[in-house]
Amino acid sequence: MKLDVLVVAAHPDDAEISVGGTMLLLARAGKKVGVVDLTRGELGTRGTADDRARETAAANRLLGLAVRHNLELADGRVEATLEARERLASIVREHEPDLLLAHHVDDLHPDHRTAGELARSAWYLAGLARLADPAATRPARRPNRLYHFMGHVPFEPTFVVDIGPVFEEKRALVRCYSTQLAPAGPEDRGQHLLFGADILARMETKARTYGERIGVRYGEPLLHRGPLPCLDPLLAPSSHGG
Amino acid sequence: MKLDVLVVAAHPDDAEISVGGTMLLLARAGKKVGVVDLTRGELGTRGTADDRARETAAANRLLGLAVRHNLELADGRVEATLEARERLASIVREHEPDLLLAHHVDDLHPDHRTAGELARSAWYLAGLARLADPAATRPARRPNRLYHFMGHVPFEPTFVVDIGPVFEEKRALVRCYSTQLAPAGPEDRGQHLLFGADILARMETKARTYGERIGVRYGEPLLHRGPLPCLDPLLAPSSHGG
Amino acid sequence: MKLDVLVVAAHPDDAEISVGGTMLLLARAGKKVGVVDLTRGELGTRGTADDRARETAAANRLLGLAVRHNLELADGRVEATLEARERLASIVREHEPDLLLAHHVDDLHPDHRTAGELARSAWYLAGLARLADPAATRPARRPNRLYHFMGHVPFEPTFVVDIGPVFEEKRALVRCYSTQLAPAGPEDRGQHLLFGADILARMETKARTYGERIGVRYGEPLLHRGPLPCLDPLLAPSSHGG
Amino acid sequence: MKLDVLVVAAHPDDAEISVGGTMLLLARAGKKVGVVDLTRGELGTRGTADDRARETAAANRLLGLAVRHNLELADGRVEATLEARERLASIVREHEPDLLLAHHVDDLHPDHRTAGELARSAWYLAGLARLADPAATRPARRPNRLYHFMGHVPFEPTFVVDIGPVFEEKRALVRCYSTQLAPAGPEDRGQHLLFGADILARMETKARTYGERIGVRYGEPLLHRGPLPCLDPLLAPSSHGG
Amino acid sequence: MKLDVLVVAAHPDDAEISVGGTMLLLARAGKKVGVVDLTRGELGTRGTADDRARETAAANRLLGLAVRHNLELADGRVEATLEARERLASIVREHEPDLLLAHHVDDLHPDHRTAGELARSAWYLAGLARLADPAATRPARRPNRLYHFMGHVPFEPTFVVDIGPVFEEKRALVRCYSTQLAPAGPEDRGQHLLFGADILARMETKARTYGERIGVRYGEPLLHRGPLPCLDPLLAPSSHGG
Amino acid sequence: MKLDVLVVAAHPDDAEISVGGTMLLLARAGKKVGVVDLTRGELGTRGTADDRARETAAANRLLGLAVRHNLELADGRVEATLEARERLASIVREHEPDLLLAHHVDDLHPDHRTAGELARSAWYLAGLARLADPAATRPARRPNRLYHFMGHVPFEPTFVVDIGPVFEEKRALVRCYSTQLAPAGPEDRGQHLLFGADILARMETKARTYGERIGVRYGEPLLHRGPLPCLDPLLAPSSHGG
Repeated sequence: MKLDVLVVAAHPDDAEISVGGTMLLLARAGKKVGVVDLTRGELGTRGTADDRARETAAANRLLGLAVRHNLELADGRVEATLEARERLASIVREHEPDLLLAHHVDDLHPDHRTAGELARSAWYLAGLARLADPAATRPARRPNRLYHFMGHVPFEPTFVVDIGPVFEEKRALVRCYSTQLAPAGPEDRGQHLLFGADILARMETKARTYGERIGVRYGEPLLHRGPLPCLDPLLAPSSHGG
Repeated sequence: MKLDVLVVAAHPDDAEISVGGTMLLLARAGKKVGVVDLTRGELGTRGTADDRARETAAANRLLGLAVRHNLELADGRVEATLEARERLASIVREHEPDLLLAHHVDDLHPDHRTAGELARSAWYLAGLARLADPAATRPARRPNRLYHFMGHVPFEPTFVVDIGPVFEEKRALVRCYSTQLAPAGPEDRGQHLLFGADILARMETKARTYGERIGVRYGEPLLHRGPLPCLDPLLAPSSHGG
Repeated sequence: MKLDVLVVAAHPDDAEISVGGTMLLLARAGKKVGVVDLTRGELGTRGTADDRARETAAANRLLGLAVRHNLELADGRVEATLEARERLASIVREHEPDLLLAHHVDDLHPDHRTAGELARSAWYLAGLARLADPAATRPARRPNRLYHFMGHVPFEPTFVVDIGPVFEEKRALVRCYSTQLAPAGPEDRGQHLLFGADILARMETKARTYGERIGVRYGEPLLHRGPLPCLDPLLAPSSHGG
Repeated sequence: MKLDVLVVAAHPDDAEISVGGTMLLLARAGKKVGVVDLTRGELGTRGTADDRARETAAANRLLGLAVRHNLELADGRVEATLEARERLASIVREHEPDLLLAHHVDDLHPDHRTAGELARSAWYLAGLARLADPAATRPARRPNRLYHFMGHVPFEPTFVVDIGPVFEEKRALVRCYSTQLAPAGPEDRGQHLLFGADILARMETKARTYGERIGVRYGEPLLHRGPLPCLDPLLAPSSHGG
Repeated sequence: MKLDVLVVAAHPDDAEISVGGTMLLLARAGKKVGVVDLTRGELGTRGTADDRARETAAANRLLGLAVRHNLELADGRVEATLEARERLASIVREHEPDLLLAHHVDDLHPDHRTAGELARSAWYLAGLARLADPAATRPARRPNRLYHFMGHVPFEPTFVVDIGPVFEEKRALVRCYSTQLAPAGPEDRGQHLLFGADILARMETKARTYGERIGVRYGEPLLHRGPLPCLDPLLAPSSHGG
Repeated sequence: MKLDVLVVAAHPDDAEISVGGTMLLLARAGKKVGVVDLTRGELGTRGTADDRARETAAANRLLGLAVRHNLELADGRVEATLEARERLASIVREHEPDLLLAHHVDDLHPDHRTAGELARSAWYLAGLARLADPAATRPARRPNRLYHFMGHVPFEPTFVVDIGPVFEEKRALVRCYSTQLAPAGPEDRGQHLLFGADILARMETKARTYGERIGVRYGEPLLHRGPLPCLDPLLAPSSHGG
């Protein structure tokens, strides 16, 4: 199936937390959006793999996703193998997305770093005709763009997507992952969470911070490496005052 | 009067918005804190110079400032003149602060950039015995540290001060500048504010963003150029989990 | 007169060489474009000020400019004075452009550096209501965007404008400045030109280099500091293959 | 055994050369310090593995180490495998250090780069409860801090530890590795040493260079990524003049 | 055989496109130059492995290469294995080059990134006497320099080699790879080429761009990490005017 | 008088401390070297202007300088005026140096920053024929190169000059400035010196640090912005082992 956008994320809920608003906006605009999760998130401190599958299914319904794949790589053990990047490249070819969204290549979680690297390589390889892909029936096709989304390590984004119109829906989306938002038991004091902060609170803070950078209430930051075509320098709405 | 800390800011309210929490914490700890405002803020779209003087006086009371100077440079027209930097250096000598806090040398407002540059030069010059300062009776003295605070242009901070214990007081402090928080009249739709955001909301977003970076609720970011002595690598409390 | 775009350049011909293609495209699209030259270029090794005025007039006709100002600052002696930046801010207010295009703040020619700094400050100040501008009758207004164009010092651009459709016109535009393209006399071996290269050849090389970065034949690079609103991540045409 | 600090180094002597002074200071202050060497250094041009084991034992006595592990990975062939990083994460859990010290992720020696990457990943993984660690009986625990030490590639440090009080002891510590300090035989002209410099001389030069940056005689540079909590901006002693 | 220069490239034609001019100049000066290609380029969209072998042979004749090795790693699947880097290190020892030229560690093609990383590690390891190389009879030897050449991701070069005197020969060299320059069949519209640009055109644009940076017509950019000895600051010819 | 090299320094002794070794080597090689000091150093805590003039004269004899100018700008008050940069440009024209050596544009001492900026602008302007220089009889001439030397703020140098052969002479050169090396009186505890370090000790540390970077004993670091022509990649002697 031809997609408009494909999101590559390490764990179920990474896509929602990082670019959930962008996915909701794209769906509203009638675009076909898909997600590839690299793992089932089975290493997560909170919730079983079954819990997480149910949560992901609920999130998919809110997102109206066209397709969601899971590569079932081992959580906490994602490696940048040739096989993984070629499976990813095959999925890219199969769905012919115009845009790929993926983790940044730098982050604190090693799976996120590896996912970013895998996506960067797969983006390139998807455009090579003779990619070693025995099952390939689809021709080579490289998405027009690869944008990286932000994890724990901040970067100066190229773009911020104004997610104000869908911010409450994004909140509902992240709430689908309820096991991730509450203690797993009396011993769980959230030690596994970096910076001790609540996921919903962190998500809102990030949305406010990057929203302010472009003069809107809530935003999601995206990074593009290298210059972009300037379609119309006058198209963009005002971000500074009147 | 010997101070512990001296803050150099371009306009009344800049010190409060940027490092109000740090100043409150220092005052609570019994430290002597002073401020040098470079201008009276008379160019501000909202409020007269008289309004702003009244507001500053109210803020001073909350801050328990030991001293507050105003260089009465022209607002919107601050220049890095020799005279300005030498006046600043004289004030530094007079008060012998251990720490200087000032704007960063990059910011969107030209007065902020210039204030950062002036403070950086004054910090250096204050330590030269023969500084061309006819009125000088105080010996040369360079503050131990110069930290820059953040304006509109983000940077990766060296430190974040945990201002959680005084955050509500900081909010009250910024509210002292009430003319800056409300429209000046029917024509004032906040166009002069970059990014169209409410000052209190922006202040809170920034506090949350940098607080999260060190695992606390609210923080103020500070930049030090060059390495710092590491007094005790074990002293610092956990910022990551348990 | 309300403009869509205002270009701030140090010397006549700087605007044409740097963003001539972008200006031609904007004019074709029915946009109103103006230029402010800071100097008359009287220091140029080749051609008199009269020559250059005639050349500029010819270029204006090709560009279909709505307006072209000259601040008549001294060539080779442009300084970032308060007066200069306020005159520039007044012109910005008068014409209410949505976009400001200006030199980058780093370049080899000191006038270019200063012009970039002046434009950056004027952009900000134009949005302050009480800017010290006695002749001001226009309300404060800050252009939505400030983009910097490239001189001798390369940077990684945010955008590249595809100037393929107007490249031959741009060549004609630069040829208007014929005194700059030929030796002034037997002693003139182009020593004043950095890197000894022909202006037209350099212009074409730069257009090819940045065009290739976005997959087109000829391009003009532009830099925006800070993130931009992402209007539609799918809007942009392919820059990488099919 | 609960440790205060754990050092992760590629080869025996790397810990001593890079952070020997810091380890000595911590031991003096009554802190428990441990080291994990990834290899036995068997690829070293000078000295056998037995020689190096004897040297390491002597160094341990000077350091008063609480524990020293060796992962016995192949020298010159350290790879960032899942197994290696999980073994390291298990050791981190077992010893619950508050601080992890490790190579920087960029260096000329590939083992150093890999050791830095392994430590960065292990630091993160140690905080995940369900880390795939069959032998784990210890709960998840992530050290408060990870600091990187410097190899051949300089970086701008966050901190410099004043090692003046223990500098002669550090010299003695490095001298424990006597096989590394003298030619192995008539053919050994030190070609394997980068930059042809004597290890003790290089160690002293680096200590002087970074000591001067904070106004002391000898220092060891450390890098922390991301901001740090500012416990007391006034705590730090003067690094600049009086 | 002792070489002066060894070039490490991922695919046949990478060496020619990137540093063909430098190799031609070295050969003209009587230097012995060798190439190690990591793969046979069998993944290339255009041309069979046999075609490419014939093309490489033709290029070798023009280059007057002393030796050309092929590691026969899988094209599109180059991995930074220990074995690959040790084979490379053995070849470096065998040929004792004074200079190593290799891909940069950042590029869009994953094979290029990996080739740069392999070369960087092999450069270092070649200088360790006990490198795990059973077949080694040659003593340890590290080339004086490692320079990186440029792929799709631009960097600020340390050096530009003036290839003006051999530019037409370089063009002929690239034309040897005729299968890479023309469509492979009716379906081949060049989609696999990044940025849709013709290889010869891109090569010329890059040569012009970097040539201009040093004031010559055509140049090849090279990067050295870290400082270089300054043999004679006056030796270099003028790059700026008279 | 035609010079080979011209050094632009803020205070007498800056040239000697920063590039004294390079100047000595150039003089030994029969090159003509000149210095322009911007100030008389009258603000220095130690020594009178007369003392410093005598010291400078002694240093000149050791250096065998062809010429030494002093612009007599106010010490501690150097400003980047048009007049100062044009005087500097005139001196550059008069002496036609092939190489200009000057402070870096970033440093802690404001005079050093300004001197770097003045030199950078003068370098450019010297190549413009119509530079506003009423006394000019010399034609425009821009030095081939501008290298920046290092003050208190470190940078990654492009080059390091091996000053081993003249290091003892350099020490003697710095000792000429004896007033700067000893306390001025009982109150002078060196507070005006940044980082409290002895000038001779700092000079030696820096020489060792940068010498090691290229595999020699003592070196002086130099920065060139932008790429350099690569005359012969094989010319440089080994900096890494045998």
